Amino acid sequence: MATLFKGNIVHAPVFGELVCIEHGYVAVSDEGRVTGVYAARPEGEFDEVDLGDMILTQAFCDMHLHAPQYTMLGRGMDLQLLEWLNRYVFPEESRYADITYAENSYRRLADEMISGGTTRAAVFSSLHTDSSLLLARILEERGVSGFVGKVNMDRNCPDFLCEDTEASLSETRRFIDGCKDFGRIRPIITPRFTPACTDALLFALGELARETGLTVQSHISENPDEVAWVKDLWPTGRGYWDSYLQAGLFEKGALMGHCVYSDEEERRVMAKKSVWAIHCPLSNIDIASGIMPVRRFIDEGINVAMGSDICAGASLFMPRVIVGAIRASKLNWIHTFKQEAFLTCAEAFFLATSAAAVYFGEGTGFAAGNEFHAIAIDDSRLGFSNELPLVERFERILYRMEPVDIKMVWNGSGTTSVK
Amino acid sequence: MATLFKGNIVHAPVFGELVCIEHGYVAVSDEGRVTGVYAARPEGEFDEVDLGDMILTQAFCDMHLHAPQYTMLGRGMDLQLLEWLNRYVFPEESRYADITYAENSYRRLADEMISGGTTRAAVFSSLHTDSSLLLARILEERGVSGFVGKVNMDRNCPDFLCEDTEASLSETRRFIDGCKDFGRIRPIITPRFTPACTDALLFALGELARETGLTVQSHISENPDEVAWVKDLWPTGRGYWDSYLQAGLFEKGALMGHCVYSDEEERRVMAKKSVWAIHCPLSNIDIASGIMPVRRFIDEGINVAMGSDICAGASLFMPRVIVGAIRASKLNWIHTFKQEAFLTCAEAFFLATSAAAVYFGEGTGFAAGNEFHAIAIDDSRLGFSNELPLVERFERILYRMEPVDIKMVWNGSGTTSVK
Repeated sequence: MATLFKGNIVHAPVFGELVCIEHGYVAVSDEGRVTGVYAARPEGEFDEVDLGDMILTQAFCDMHLHAPQYTMLGRGMDLQLLEWLNRYVFPEESRYADITYAENSYRRLADEMISGGTTRAAVFSSLHTDSSLLLARILEERGVSGFVGKVNMDRNCPDFLCEDTEASLSETRRFIDGCKDFGRIRPIITPRFTPACTDALLFALGELARETGLTVQSHISENPDEVAWVKDLWPTGRGYWDSYLQAGLFEKGALMGHCVYSDEEERRVMAKKSVWAIHCPLSNIDIASGIMPVRRFIDEGINVAMGSDICAGASLFMPRVIVGAIRASKLNWIHTFKQEAFLTCAEAFFLATSAAAVYFGEGTGFAAGNEFHAIAIDDSRLGFSNELPLVERFERILYRMEPVDIKMVWNGSGTTSVK
Repeated sequence: MATLFKGNIVHAPVFGELVCIEHGYVAVSDEGRVTGVYAARPEGEFDEVDLGDMILTQAFCDMHLHAPQYTMLGRGMDLQLLEWLNRYVFPEESRYADITYAENSYRRLADEMISGGTTRAAVFSSLHTDSSLLLARILEERGVSGFVGKVNMDRNCPDFLCEDTEASLSETRRFIDGCKDFGRIRPIITPRFTPACTDALLFALGELARETGLTVQSHISENPDEVAWVKDLWPTGRGYWDSYLQAGLFEKGALMGHCVYSDEEERRVMAKKSVWAIHCPLSNIDIASGIMPVRRFIDEGINVAMGSDICAGASLFMPRVIVGAIRASKLNWIHTFKQEAFLTCAEAFFLATSAAAVYFGEGTGFAAGNEFHAIAIDDSRLGFSNELPLVERFERILYRMEPVDIKMVWNGSGTTSVK
């Protein structure tokens, strides 16, 4: 039977607007698809789930994170990108050759994602195929859906973490084959970034993307030193983007993390090609990369979603990333002399939920037909709830909630909470 | 009998340096004063408290916050200072005329401060004398020590929150008298800020400070519009600071919140007069004021401590403020083209603990003779602790801890935890 959820409903069908319904209803079919949002009880027969005074809202999408960096969350934060990669990240990622180490870490990661209300994600693994397949399986089992990529890297990385080009390709094929059995996790082509991939590898991965129809995720224009490095490595390129474009990796649906230093040309090509910019505000601040001018991307019609980018970003919990995006945009607003309006709560929430839902082929907000990806939040710990209009309660929740305040999580696979 | 605490000790005796002792000891006299920090068990007779694998570190000092804004934490964050004051803050503060409303809010506030490891503070109340005395009593009872000020404001504020100048003064005297019975809470002269105080009020408060020997807290150079406004109001002044200096309010030990737009002259006078700059990074970002160039203040010999500035800052929990300060400083580093080094974890922690301890007449870190202000943190929730050097465990804690991870709090009044 269909289920009717009763509670305080908040969702974001439109960028910049929160629809808030006190004591409202969301109806979900027995296949786990939203059939409607209502202010008054709809006609029909339902199993009713009364959420009391809790708030029922959309679950989060984390569209850029590095699973094998989970063990490093919050460490080494006094460094910048390239030094931080060499001193911390690469040695840590190499440990994921050990499947036991990987399993322990990935189980914790998947659990923390679900507990924190993240039900969909685009995830970088390490270069190790077996650990990557294990990651995909653990995420699927724990109820996270989306994309997992085995990382490719065959130059400018330490010996212990550098692939042979041919092996990198054949292992990627093995990874893709190994994903066939999964229901809600799909593989994604994942060159680490231009500096870590030879031209031969980039072009072969582009060919593989074409052949398999898989999308691509990578990094772009994160840090000034990195941008300069790519210019050295691709002296004939018209920009960082061109190293991906020429290889066939800068096509519709490609997810490009960061875009802090994307120039006008790069943004123009992204818009034209329907490449996605994944905004990772905490990461950009924590390893001192800079601020992505999100507003400009949106105004120029580029698709933007949001990522935690753990562990360059020190929090996996998406409300922190949302607030981080607002804070970064406020500082950008000051530094552009108020030329670029900062993100409102409603806008930043949209980017971490509805915007990414579109990437998964769904509608925004609790659109009819969407899988039911939702969380129920108990904000009674914060006090004074009955005095506040729902929209202010919700804004307060974004700023102040802890994972423990999320009491239930629905992950698109039905009407049973997976938390 | 004296007490010996056994655990992983982390403290900050020097700016920029964390002293980390795995399985170390802190000895505390039966009057609650630190007598020493040891790597090996010291000689002598002690009651021993074994903290196991927990981390024992300094408690936090929150040197700028507005108690009656506690009820507003996380609300109205899409606005800037002056509009936010008028639409949100002033109407809310007016409710603290109601002593029952105040009591409910202040009890929650005091409890959240102690639970979050903040044992010392400098607190703005509202203009209401009875509520302010109640706040002082509640803080003292719950175990927070420091300063509480009844706010003075007699112009440029709504009618329902505007004092008569004479009444403002006599009520301030009544507040100071009423604080006589407190042991660990002292009154502090608290003009809201120059725009909200007539010249007559500022000068009279300066006179009162001289007469009573009390110190002063207020706001300075937070927002460009506010700075311009003060210039209009004090056209003959040499700067914002001069409005306080002429009134006798810019003297040794004055706590001045914000200092985002303090120019060279203002900083020079602050250094010369031993006025303290209270850095409130989350507030400065959340209501889009800007970034205080903390490094410059420190290099110029100005005393700097840290404040949550709730509710302009959306978090009362000092580790969030510490990380906020690091993040703000990283963006400042980028925007000054790497001229001003960002704050390290060790530096930011020092500002939120040892720096303020000096204001209370104590030594830095767990200095011998200090009151025992400390917290015990259980980081087992984060996993992998046994793999990390203590300094990395501690940095990770700063980024990732939640109030629930603080298991015990000692507030300087003895060796019994108040959490």
